[in-house]
Amino acid sequence: MMTTHNIVGYLGPRGTHSEDVCSNYYPETEWTFQPYATIDACIRAVASGEITECIVPIENSLEGSINITLDTLAHEVDLCIQKEVVWQIHNHLLTKSLDEEIHTIVSHAQPLAQCRHYLTKHYPYAQFKAVESTVEAVRLVVDSAKGHAAIANIKASKLYDMNVLAMDIQDHPHNCTRFVILGRQPLEHGEGEYKTSIVCRIRGDKPGRLYHLLQELAGNNINLVRIESRPARTELGEYIFFMDMEGSIADANVQIAIASLQKKSLWFKNLGSYIVCKNSIL
Amino acid sequence: MMTTHNIVGYLGPRGTHSEDVCSNYYPETEWTFQPYATIDACIRAVASGEITECIVPIENSLEGSINITLDTLAHEVDLCIQKEVVWQIHNHLLTKSLDEEIHTIVSHAQPLAQCRHYLTKHYPYAQFKAVESTVEAVRLVVDSAKGHAAIANIKASKLYDMNVLAMDIQDHPHNCTRFVILGRQPLEHGEGEYKTSIVCRIRGDKPGRLYHLLQELAGNNINLVRIESRPARTELGEYIFFMDMEGSIADANVQIAIASLQKKSLWFKNLGSYIVCKNSIL
Repeated sequence: MMTTHNIVGYLGPRGTHSEDVCSNYYPETEWTFQPYATIDACIRAVASGEITECIVPIENSLEGSINITLDTLAHEVDLCIQKEVVWQIHNHLLTKSLDEEIHTIVSHAQPLAQCRHYLTKHYPYAQFKAVESTVEAVRLVVDSAKGHAAIANIKASKLYDMNVLAMDIQDHPHNCTRFVILGRQPLEHGEGEYKTSIVCRIRGDKPGRLYHLLQELAGNNINLVRIESRPARTELGEYIFFMDMEGSIADANVQIAIASLQKKSLWFKNLGSYIVCKNSIL
Repeated sequence: MMTTHNIVGYLGPRGTHSEDVCSNYYPETEWTFQPYATIDACIRAVASGEITECIVPIENSLEGSINITLDTLAHEVDLCIQKEVVWQIHNHLLTKSLDEEIHTIVSHAQPLAQCRHYLTKHYPYAQFKAVESTVEAVRLVVDSAKGHAAIANIKASKLYDMNVLAMDIQDHPHNCTRFVILGRQPLEHGEGEYKTSIVCRIRGDKPGRLYHLLQELAGNNINLVRIESRPARTELGEYIFFMDMEGSIADANVQIAIASLQKKSLWFKNLGSYIVCKNSIL
């Protein structure tokens, strides 16, 4: 296993929301930025030791979980969440010139979904195409004939010299994405507000299984801030549960609860205790 | 409001998995099949009275929830689930001729995700494009230059005279999709196995809120078969919960539990009690 220092991975190419977040949280003097074509490739590069850590999206306030991040964390790597960062997303509609009749709108699947109402209202007859990233979409529009538009951020419009046809077209003003920083080692406990995340699988065939699991949190006075089910990938109706709770594994009550959750689970993974950057909503 | 009889809507165009399911469950002698370009348009057509009912996907065993179905049910219409049907999905890789070097693979986002490992292994350098349906993908390949492949079912390959380059390329043999039939009226209770679905929002700021909610199910000896959180679309960290439980509203314990859940919720919607077609896994 090759180990290098101070390389942070993100969903590239240059100009994505992920790069925005990355360049805001990592000083360029100390870190090398490494773009990846997909989120799972980025996460796996941390696991293999190719890069030091990565910053990847895990949840959007309108569209919900980024499934590929959850599934890769659960099934394919053993990494720890070290920090969470909340980032305000601005989606703009970009074109080559301002006088085009738009028939095709391209973006990553998430921005397309985040702007669904706007697009259906203003472009009821347009075709929607999902590509790997917002910048990929901009590049595609640059290379296409008239009539194509991309949904991306301001940086991408500048990088590729595009016109902004409409600003902030997301369906809801509070369009935030939660990013997590993933590393190979658990974070050393310090000052600040902490959350702890786990993922587990329980037998689902009797009344009250999940209830008895949550008892371990409620009984230890721990606030469950998020629960997300994903397919266990065994058969339909079998799930794994991602749970985010307030507190750190350094807290006695969290320690007790985590031990009990693990005991009651068929399969269990501690995804780490990590600092919450509350002031990161810009 | 226009009301017609015996028209069932599905995610078209002809040749989709949805059409497969539709033609299997509705006799063509009694029903007119009406394809829609998107799932939400299909659901809204039932709500507006344009069609009698619709059959739409709600969950896949590998990729999880179909978010647009959940979000439309929660936020945009007041419809009842009347039946659930589980359908085995077969994904094939289709091309115009068998001797092409594939550089672009097109499908709906779900099949692309369901075949992610296969595609990454066999086509690491290909570009992936998501379009509105599997048949839309096949049409796009038909109209494209060499080097394009679509992921779709056998019916689409026959309809468009395509070659099957690889069969059953989904990452897991148990690739099933759960469909629901939606109507404007609750189902009259009859014989058979029932499930009941609700969606609710609770205050999330104190330990044990969800735990106390689930108590109503466990305490009434009701098995919670699925819980899914989706963004409440207010702000990050606020969720609504979809819960599927065994039993019908005609059962006394379900009636009691539903009333208590409603009482404890900030917002609550009963999505109906419906028949489970167990023998529908082909």
